[in-house]
Amino acid sequence: MTTASETLTVNLDTRSYDILLGNNLLESAGETIRTALGNGKCWIISDENVAPMHLPTLKASLSQANIQAKVIVLPPGEGSKSLATLEMIVNRILDGSPERGSTLIALGGGVVGDIAGLAASLVLRGINYVQIPTTLLAQVDSSVGGKTAVNTKHGKNLAGAFYQPKLVIADAGVLDTLPHRELLAGYAEVVKYGLIRDNEFFEWLEKNGTAVIAGDHDARSHAVSTSCATKADLVSEDERETGARALLNFGHTFGHALEAETGFSMDLLHGEAVSIGMILALELSTMLGYCPASNLKRTLNHFTDVGLPTCLPSKGSLSWDPLRLIEHMGRDKKVHDGRITFILARSIGDAFATRDVSLHDVENVLRRAAE
Amino acid sequence: MTTASETLTVNLDTRSYDILLGNNLLESAGETIRTALGNGKCWIISDENVAPMHLPTLKASLSQANIQAKVIVLPPGEGSKSLATLEMIVNRILDGSPERGSTLIALGGGVVGDIAGLAASLVLRGINYVQIPTTLLAQVDSSVGGKTAVNTKHGKNLAGAFYQPKLVIADAGVLDTLPHRELLAGYAEVVKYGLIRDNEFFEWLEKNGTAVIAGDHDARSHAVSTSCATKADLVSEDERETGARALLNFGHTFGHALEAETGFSMDLLHGEAVSIGMILALELSTMLGYCPASNLKRTLNHFTDVGLPTCLPSKGSLSWDPLRLIEHMGRDKKVHDGRITFILARSIGDAFATRDVSLHDVENVLRRAAE
Repeated sequence: MTTASETLTVNLDTRSYDILLGNNLLESAGETIRTALGNGKCWIISDENVAPMHLPTLKASLSQANIQAKVIVLPPGEGSKSLATLEMIVNRILDGSPERGSTLIALGGGVVGDIAGLAASLVLRGINYVQIPTTLLAQVDSSVGGKTAVNTKHGKNLAGAFYQPKLVIADAGVLDTLPHRELLAGYAEVVKYGLIRDNEFFEWLEKNGTAVIAGDHDARSHAVSTSCATKADLVSEDERETGARALLNFGHTFGHALEAETGFSMDLLHGEAVSIGMILALELSTMLGYCPASNLKRTLNHFTDVGLPTCLPSKGSLSWDPLRLIEHMGRDKKVHDGRITFILARSIGDAFATRDVSLHDVENVLRRAAE
Repeated sequence: MTTASETLTVNLDTRSYDILLGNNLLESAGETIRTALGNGKCWIISDENVAPMHLPTLKASLSQANIQAKVIVLPPGEGSKSLATLEMIVNRILDGSPERGSTLIALGGGVVGDIAGLAASLVLRGINYVQIPTTLLAQVDSSVGGKTAVNTKHGKNLAGAFYQPKLVIADAGVLDTLPHRELLAGYAEVVKYGLIRDNEFFEWLEKNGTAVIAGDHDARSHAVSTSCATKADLVSEDERETGARALLNFGHTFGHALEAETGFSMDLLHGEAVSIGMILALELSTMLGYCPASNLKRTLNHFTDVGLPTCLPSKGSLSWDPLRLIEHMGRDKKVHDGRITFILARSIGDAFATRDVSLHDVENVLRRAAE
């Protein structure tokens, strides 16, 4: 049996949980889950892209551990993150008479994890939830922190819960089947951890980022584990996002506005929007005199080296209207008393949150970027 | 301005909150809420029975405190506790662009509180939630503990969340408008606290129960405050219901089965079912030799004195089939590894949880009761 090469604990009192990191963990997931949570009733949520690749391995492994699992496969994409799908999932699980000791496994990327986690939180006011993230983005971002959500007609992730998994199994091997574009989008969140808190990690990425993306398992494992550890630290300090955790939104205020403008479509992946958003945040930081221009330059160089986007993509006949983008920002969950929180940086590895940013300056940064 | 005559704190670390107890608190609720949570955006959820009586007072009070509130009024009854109504509420709130510092106020009984609390937990992953319970049942039971839920086609409260309010305002005055039958049903939960943990309180109720029900404000305030304090103790020990909190289910395993059999209709109110359920639990405790028969007798006497039901009501042409009732019990959230948890008593004031009860003995108790 393959065992985890590293175990990371997210410390949240009674809601603490382990993230298992390593290769070929999917093959032994059944035994891992049985040891941690017993062999009660089990449901798996996956999507039509991931299921053909990884579901047979997971099911065989659960079966070997004497766990009978029912499977719910969703259409891929943000369209599945709706209240209607949530209701369907909750009812499908209740059809099978779950107990509080029953387990829901999310096998997939962020969409599957977000809606499965919310369903797990709601059924009987909470059943066991296990995440097996199959994208780099989900491994380094949504697998830590307990954020679950669905979208509504008003926007993305506007209804959800903070609900911690009992266990996360982050198998570096499953990333081998991930399309390059998605891998790169996930890498944007990896480099974010360097930019906000860890200059040393950023330096390591400058040297090894290409290897991480190319598929070097050791480099990839180190990148995932360092990212998860940083996020776990921030989340442990601040589970419900009132302070330190806000730093994780670096690049996201701008990024979400870009995603909203493209209708959260495949035209711009979340990680791509965050990549451009981080550059915009650094440009704003530089313009306001917080951050030396050399740091912005160095970041631009690294992004270009690995292939991350750094500027607004051409949008056909549409323009990137700065005022519309700012309007999108105003609808963010982190708006407080009508003021938008921005995460800026003093240098690489030293980000901070502020609400003292003039929207006029934000407009200037956006206007220059849109030229 | 009227101030609370007593403040009770429910200790749950960062989720701790106060319950304000006293008379005429509704008149000053606006100022109380503004002091605690500021005057951000606000929504009120109520129902068609409660709104005509208490909504004008609450709205005037909020308006005086410079809080603008939008109102959502639901049809009364369990029918409103659905996923469809939940979605409607979430969308109505999102229509008004809430922030995390926005506040949702539940003005009503258990149904309003349960669905409003769940909606508050979901919007932006959690906005402020304030409970103003207008029934005795809601004041002594659902206002403490953070249980929120909706019903599904599979049963009652099967989808929900643990979500704590920021503040509970329990105004003894609003109970004056409560129909006698509902007041009595709420009293069943009051006497439960005596039975499970507090022999002294049970003795006090033997002397003062009639005054509590008749409307004596002092007696009522003491009963509500003692009940809330006991529940707050148990919930503080065990927020997510893994141990001590289970005692609160005394009478509920039997009671829920009776409610399920009557389709959760007005034929049998929750408190009435719990009243009968507590007698059945004591009969089982006595039959198994845990509890002296004299304690059962004393409880029967008190229930009869105040007018609480002690035996299965006649059901027209239907019989109370013991095996069907046991089947209902098997669908409870507290079933673990297929075994039903029963709360039994060693004496008045000393309840305990056990899974070592033979269903044959349960059947015997039910068979005798149905005769």
